[in-house]
Amino acid sequence: MSVLRGRQFFMHPGPTNIPDRVLRAMDAAAVDFTGKDFVSRREKAVEGLKRMLKTKDGVVICYASSGHGAWEASVANTLSPGDKVLVCAAGYFSENWARMATAFGAEVEMLETPERHAVDPAAVAARLAKDDAREIKAVMIVQNETATGTMHPVPAVRKAIDSVGHPALFFVDTISSFCSYDFRMDDWGVDLVVGGSQKGLMLPPGMAFNAVSEKAWNASQSARNPRRYWDWRNMVENRRQVRFTGTPPMHFFYGLEASVAMIEEEGLENVFARHRRLATATRACVKAWAAGGGPDVFPLDPAAASDSLTACLMPKGHNAEEVRRIAETDFNVALGRGLAQLEGRVFRIGHMGDLNEPMLLGALACVEMALKRAGVPHGSGGLDAAMATLA
Amino acid sequence: MSVLRGRQFFMHPGPTNIPDRVLRAMDAAAVDFTGKDFVSRREKAVEGLKRMLKTKDGVVICYASSGHGAWEASVANTLSPGDKVLVCAAGYFSENWARMATAFGAEVEMLETPERHAVDPAAVAARLAKDDAREIKAVMIVQNETATGTMHPVPAVRKAIDSVGHPALFFVDTISSFCSYDFRMDDWGVDLVVGGSQKGLMLPPGMAFNAVSEKAWNASQSARNPRRYWDWRNMVENRRQVRFTGTPPMHFFYGLEASVAMIEEEGLENVFARHRRLATATRACVKAWAAGGGPDVFPLDPAAASDSLTACLMPKGHNAEEVRRIAETDFNVALGRGLAQLEGRVFRIGHMGDLNEPMLLGALACVEMALKRAGVPHGSGGLDAAMATLA
Amino acid sequence: MSVLRGRQFFMHPGPTNIPDRVLRAMDAAAVDFTGKDFVSRREKAVEGLKRMLKTKDGVVICYASSGHGAWEASVANTLSPGDKVLVCAAGYFSENWARMATAFGAEVEMLETPERHAVDPAAVAARLAKDDAREIKAVMIVQNETATGTMHPVPAVRKAIDSVGHPALFFVDTISSFCSYDFRMDDWGVDLVVGGSQKGLMLPPGMAFNAVSEKAWNASQSARNPRRYWDWRNMVENRRQVRFTGTPPMHFFYGLEASVAMIEEEGLENVFARHRRLATATRACVKAWAAGGGPDVFPLDPAAASDSLTACLMPKGHNAEEVRRIAETDFNVALGRGLAQLEGRVFRIGHMGDLNEPMLLGALACVEMALKRAGVPHGSGGLDAAMATLA
Amino acid sequence: MSVLRGRQFFMHPGPTNIPDRVLRAMDAAAVDFTGKDFVSRREKAVEGLKRMLKTKDGVVICYASSGHGAWEASVANTLSPGDKVLVCAAGYFSENWARMATAFGAEVEMLETPERHAVDPAAVAARLAKDDAREIKAVMIVQNETATGTMHPVPAVRKAIDSVGHPALFFVDTISSFCSYDFRMDDWGVDLVVGGSQKGLMLPPGMAFNAVSEKAWNASQSARNPRRYWDWRNMVENRRQVRFTGTPPMHFFYGLEASVAMIEEEGLENVFARHRRLATATRACVKAWAAGGGPDVFPLDPAAASDSLTACLMPKGHNAEEVRRIAETDFNVALGRGLAQLEGRVFRIGHMGDLNEPMLLGALACVEMALKRAGVPHGSGGLDAAMATLA
Repeated sequence: MSVLRGRQFFMHPGPTNIPDRVLRAMDAAAVDFTGKDFVSRREKAVEGLKRMLKTKDGVVICYASSGHGAWEASVANTLSPGDKVLVCAAGYFSENWARMATAFGAEVEMLETPERHAVDPAAVAARLAKDDAREIKAVMIVQNETATGTMHPVPAVRKAIDSVGHPALFFVDTISSFCSYDFRMDDWGVDLVVGGSQKGLMLPPGMAFNAVSEKAWNASQSARNPRRYWDWRNMVENRRQVRFTGTPPMHFFYGLEASVAMIEEEGLENVFARHRRLATATRACVKAWAAGGGPDVFPLDPAAASDSLTACLMPKGHNAEEVRRIAETDFNVALGRGLAQLEGRVFRIGHMGDLNEPMLLGALACVEMALKRAGVPHGSGGLDAAMATLA
Repeated sequence: MSVLRGRQFFMHPGPTNIPDRVLRAMDAAAVDFTGKDFVSRREKAVEGLKRMLKTKDGVVICYASSGHGAWEASVANTLSPGDKVLVCAAGYFSENWARMATAFGAEVEMLETPERHAVDPAAVAARLAKDDAREIKAVMIVQNETATGTMHPVPAVRKAIDSVGHPALFFVDTISSFCSYDFRMDDWGVDLVVGGSQKGLMLPPGMAFNAVSEKAWNASQSARNPRRYWDWRNMVENRRQVRFTGTPPMHFFYGLEASVAMIEEEGLENVFARHRRLATATRACVKAWAAGGGPDVFPLDPAAASDSLTACLMPKGHNAEEVRRIAETDFNVALGRGLAQLEGRVFRIGHMGDLNEPMLLGALACVEMALKRAGVPHGSGGLDAAMATLA
Repeated sequence: MSVLRGRQFFMHPGPTNIPDRVLRAMDAAAVDFTGKDFVSRREKAVEGLKRMLKTKDGVVICYASSGHGAWEASVANTLSPGDKVLVCAAGYFSENWARMATAFGAEVEMLETPERHAVDPAAVAARLAKDDAREIKAVMIVQNETATGTMHPVPAVRKAIDSVGHPALFFVDTISSFCSYDFRMDDWGVDLVVGGSQKGLMLPPGMAFNAVSEKAWNASQSARNPRRYWDWRNMVENRRQVRFTGTPPMHFFYGLEASVAMIEEEGLENVFARHRRLATATRACVKAWAAGGGPDVFPLDPAAASDSLTACLMPKGHNAEEVRRIAETDFNVALGRGLAQLEGRVFRIGHMGDLNEPMLLGALACVEMALKRAGVPHGSGGLDAAMATLA
Repeated sequence: MSVLRGRQFFMHPGPTNIPDRVLRAMDAAAVDFTGKDFVSRREKAVEGLKRMLKTKDGVVICYASSGHGAWEASVANTLSPGDKVLVCAAGYFSENWARMATAFGAEVEMLETPERHAVDPAAVAARLAKDDAREIKAVMIVQNETATGTMHPVPAVRKAIDSVGHPALFFVDTISSFCSYDFRMDDWGVDLVVGGSQKGLMLPPGMAFNAVSEKAWNASQSARNPRRYWDWRNMVENRRQVRFTGTPPMHFFYGLEASVAMIEEEGLENVFARHRRLATATRACVKAWAAGGGPDVFPLDPAAASDSLTACLMPKGHNAEEVRRIAETDFNVALGRGLAQLEGRVFRIGHMGDLNEPMLLGALACVEMALKRAGVPHGSGGLDAAMATLA
């Protein structure tokens, strides 16, 4: 196999491109994690997370874990065996979070969403309205379904819950939306946030967090699932994380300092605008391919198309894995695969994190060349269409 | 406060000095964690772990977590509520592991060890002999108690278990002994190993692992504690880890590749010899201090003194924290604090991982100067004593 | 000004993209530069240079300096005041090398080449034929004129010299061609090579070298220009560099080790093929722009167009600096400026070193968008044309 | 040979320990060296150099070169063939600078200083007093002779020159004193400074500089030596460097930014105090060795002993190289060798740059162990003596 040169275009929807500044910040000696210096640095970095979550009251609790760990923490801390939860089911990740809840004894109800559609707030309202006994303890939703590139309408779901006066906790997975597009914990009445390091935060995988409202905190005090590694009660004092279960993953905080600084130098809203701009260009390109019988944007409703990644649905009879293979082998462009039932049907172009126009356009050009080499039909002019939205 | 210059002498008993080679290896872009390249690199690195654990049959399962996560994994996967376990209680870390087991519903019995002593295998045998009903499901021991600098006799405990023909699983925490002194999973009949990245492996904190014997694996199949993040059943196929719960902490595997290579270039037995040499020098120095009424090596039995750190017990009326403060503030030498009931009574000199003679001697010299500045009595000639063992 | 994110596309014709592997190799402590370890590493790295220069007999002498230093070394070591040299004048860099020779007392004759053309070997032959007295001591040529993106025919010039039996030394500047396209010191009878670190070698600027044939070495023994920093006589023993004038720039040798390894893993001829491929794509794109009245490839003869950079000649009335400014400010794509008389008339797209398809295409797309924003007329379809050559 | 572990104690008198912060700053992509951003960063870093040189009027001119390059620049720019210069000869480096001047046609007079002594200002005055014709164009002195660890009295030599009203230019090499102890270009009437990157500035080797007074600048306008790489006239406009001869060594400026920041955070006078403190400790240790017939501090006059390194003169019949070999091979402590006539007679302990107490004490302890292993007689108590000065 030939040796590839130049930088790999890493267009995965997570982990993402880690900026040099973050990598260099993490390329550093260990320090006393109980010392004043590190504690102060850690706390300041977490203050940044809170600003980006747009929460004043939420308690942010970080873990050495993948995002799935923060999922487990969310259910282990708040649920007891037998608790009912309603999961807005809309793809691989919502299904897996549901499995987490099931593993911890919850009675999980999946509110299914048709493929290629966003979660319907009306359906949530309708289901909750029928819950006369108010048995549903939590509504769980993934803001950005990473498997399908779909944005789900978190604030509208909040309104749906409120519209029927349901007291359920509102859990939101922001793993692949955080720092890519808007999220407002306090304004949107989110009780529990699940987030991770390796997407919009531009860090390596290995740190995750919850942000916890007072209501979710209160729920955790009586929850009866066994837990210790994730146990908020041992980690939080005065609504602030003062402790980890074991050694904190200190290098991630070195990196987080840098990533918070980078995001705030650019301006969070500018970060969102950049993601929107690059996402729009991507969709214009894919739509041009689709116009010639090529891969199409997975969500049917343009408003549901994600600003952090674009899942491309292959035309029938063509395998997405072949496109991915060629893109990587021939052009050093790494794309995300289709997950579970979407394997082979979808490839995913991540456009979140530390990305800009030439990175995106270079990748799109190579995807188009890979389509050609793979013999996948596709409309022409994709690049020009993308450039037209950007120029 | 004045600005400190030069390299900090980081003499903590974990995290430890991370070699430049490891840091540089981790200073790298993310890659496709499902791709062949990364999977092959990861598996090769884990093969190295297995060689260092001296196991052929053990299944090594890695987690994005601190070492405490691997503790939780050990009990969540193997125990069911009500299971009895016997913990060789000998300090802060064995107590915390016990709490982990308690949190997961185990009925924990603490086999207490007198302060400043190693676990007594005869006591283990005696206790197990009385367990006529063979109710004790697991014996849990920390090979190296990081809080007290005590080495506990793992192979002798194994023999003790065998001497009474007890079928209990044998769980060993190697967090602060692994790669510092000998451990032999297969020869010593260890069923479940708990290990972490940030000590003898010379990596940052944030990755931990279990190694699991067939017997422990079988136990896990019927264990009834809720678990998903740590669930071996989802991660292992054909006795090999094929999956993580979420994104693997890939940068730790970049680092692990380097650390395995470094350890094997030096030779694992040479690594042990170096730790023994540096530990011996440290103890000679501390004993010289003690001879003049100064801090003394915590374990009373020289054979129990750890090769990975030396806990120094302060003379009555003097506070270890003051010594630590001066060493760090005046000389840029960072020492470990005393934990829980040992806070203030003990400071700890880590001598594990990427350490050599001048690092150790420079640190010891500065500790001695800190003792002097703190007004702590101590014998003279500590450095010469240390150097005599090394020259 | 808005903050730019994502990686800068650094499309300068030197310095170039420095691979992470090189940067990490240079991110290392100083070592004893007289010790066996370093000397052996340095010598092995230089052996790599020799393989890439395709010389067995040439003595490679490295300097802590920019490429201009190696120019100065070339003339200071070989020429005496009053010596005649013939410079194949074809742009900014050949002119500057000539000034170097003039500063050291040479009587320099400029053999002018018409703008947008490569050096004409016949003209060289004709001029040398007239040098009955064989007074011309050296013929100097820049293989790749970085200011104009022109490849000059080094082997044909060698043949021209031979065709008239002229004994002149043959000096070749390979600064922006080395490791981008073919060079053969021995086969082409080159007596003195000038090379630098910061282009095809993918290192930072700061190290340069000469490669010296026996004939040039002999000439240096009687040359009467003052010199010490560059003095071969102090640095070379047994036709090998054994010494630097002062401390060697050791970090560049750390980097050189990595860069030689990278080039040889890929295969030098594959490196050349990659440069040819990317250059061809660039020219196809620029030609599409030119077809609509836009910027054109500077050299008129396609065979003279450089594989390491493309100088783009602006249409009359448009300023290249404005295109550069927009590309950098709006799209984070850095282009090279026009030099001296070409300032404003030319922008330059470097495509040498650690580059691949998506890097190039992303850059070209952004240049096209910059042309649009700058109101520079240009044909459409540039990207498609480039992609057509690559797909 | 066994593999060494832990950090090498790099106790060379240059290059020195490069702080992580500097290395990380240099671990960065290339940028447009003509762009506003880089030019501004470069100029700010050079302003820092000027503050540390304590000059308002001096023009600082940087080169991609070793310190020897700045030597060559000093003589090539200011002298013409036949010019007389007086060199305060006091060791290897003053001799080599003299050779540089000789190579450029100067008529060099060596004012010899007895071995193990500092330059005698009275001798300078006496010699200049005899120069009735005022033919001596420059007095050249090395502030810190790196070969012998001797500080030469620069301000006293200035006074000596003034005392006889001699108009000679005053050239000072600060390579191994800069940022280790005091230097005041303006107050001391220094006309030309030679400095380098790799000692007190804590950078890798590869950048050097001159600082030039108006008087030296004026001298350069009529100097007739050939020069171009070093030619101030092409690099300076309005008494500021605006240009390099070729590409500037940009990564060194990234590093310089960090090193200036580090020095100024600590405070330049505090940096000097730290060097004095560590030098005093070193000398106390060596004097204890000497008291038992061991190696002794090279300069006989304590006031002449350098704060940046200590040259240790071996007892007769013992070879310094054997001590160096053991220190490096057995203890990973790298010492400087004896140069030229001092080879084997001297080993050198660098204590300049990014150094602190534990680094120094660790090194001294290992040197003592190396003396023991080498069978070199030496007094005991060296470490205690050093610690006594520090505690």
